[in-house]
Amino acid sequence: MPEPIRIAAMASGGGTNLQAIVDACEAGSINGRVVLVFSDKSDAGVLERARKHDIETVHVRVPKSDTAEWEEADRQIAEVFRARDVDLVVMVGYMRKIGPSLLGAFRDRIMNVHPGLLPAFPGVEVQWDAVEYGVKVAGPTVHFASAEVDSGPIIIQAAGPGLPGDTGQDLADRILAQEHRIYPQAVQWFAEGRLQIEGRKVKLVEPASADATPDADATAIISPPLDGEF
Amino acid sequence: MPEPIRIAAMASGGGTNLQAIVDACEAGSINGRVVLVFSDKSDAGVLERARKHDIETVHVRVPKSDTAEWEEADRQIAEVFRARDVDLVVMVGYMRKIGPSLLGAFRDRIMNVHPGLLPAFPGVEVQWDAVEYGVKVAGPTVHFASAEVDSGPIIIQAAGPGLPGDTGQDLADRILAQEHRIYPQAVQWFAEGRLQIEGRKVKLVEPASADATPDADATAIISPPLDGEF
Repeated sequence: MPEPIRIAAMASGGGTNLQAIVDACEAGSINGRVVLVFSDKSDAGVLERARKHDIETVHVRVPKSDTAEWEEADRQIAEVFRARDVDLVVMVGYMRKIGPSLLGAFRDRIMNVHPGLLPAFPGVEVQWDAVEYGVKVAGPTVHFASAEVDSGPIIIQAAGPGLPGDTGQDLADRILAQEHRIYPQAVQWFAEGRLQIEGRKVKLVEPASADATPDADATAIISPPLDGEF
Repeated sequence: MPEPIRIAAMASGGGTNLQAIVDACEAGSINGRVVLVFSDKSDAGVLERARKHDIETVHVRVPKSDTAEWEEADRQIAEVFRARDVDLVVMVGYMRKIGPSLLGAFRDRIMNVHPGLLPAFPGVEVQWDAVEYGVKVAGPTVHFASAEVDSGPIIIQAAGPGLPGDTGQDLADRILAQEHRIYPQAVQWFAEGRLQIEGRKVKLVEPASADATPDADATAIISPPLDGEF
């Protein structure tokens, strides 16, 4: 069995996806451990969540994006992660742009989750946009972070129905449940060394170790079919 | 049972989706009949396909979009459809923009199928774009036509996996198979009077007639889940 990976999380809010990842680590379905939770908000719920699991917390104020002060904060964060020997950074509701120091130091080792089927609906509060648009299929995306927001190589996506009468919150709740399912899966694939990036495509390769989870190539998680097939 | 609807099809190519709709009409799963096939190409395969089923064919040359000549052709096409008492127009691989006369005369009665999960990947050859982008979930959209291409209210979408090693053609073939499944379904819902447009949302309402197909509210057709759930 390979060494457990050391995971750092970045969040601005409650970080329910951190919970899903921590739970999977504790249950042994991720061969890794969350060693650090970072937030740009000193009162983010995610910090309390981390403390409950005895995970170190770090708060750094992050100034306005694309300024010299923002780049300095980005350097500090990268340095904190490097000092803890972090293998993988997971963004779990981190609402700020990450900068060149972090991206450079953790190239192909930063993941993000987005509540839309990218490239559809980049941005924020996109579940509400999706309901307004009248989509019939919706779901989240886990992808590697890149300099441009919501546009890095896709690791896994999940799809489920947009239902009649959905409010944005209804859809957001269902998508969040899917995030909690696919994000730990993506992290475990990383821990197993199974994610190979080629250009902007992510290939899921066979496990290097015989102990690795023998799951199939399930980078699309598709909800059960509804009744009433034609 | 309500009157069978009279359907006109518009195509620029082979029109395999016309075949799916004609087959469903002949099998009785669409309460309707294709009475006319129009093409902007005099040698389009769809015309031969229509003749095999004794369906009237019409060819009108369509000049460059957004010119006076194009508007005149659009008026002619609308007039042809009106003269045949057409209830529903289905675009089956029609590669031209439709104009104000047609949209005005057949408001909320023109459907199109697009091989992408709109609003992702509007345009042409989008299956190839989707493979390049590295999407993990892909599928077609059936929607009502609007003045802007690929952007009208969505009736039904289907989702399936983007697979490792897919070429654009591989994905296009699987998406096309889904189109042949969801397009006839959308047409039958129209024939049953079950499609209600509210703003840009399409609601599937209960069948007006007791004879109508009692299918559930299945406006998202989701492929079976893959193995290897987390």
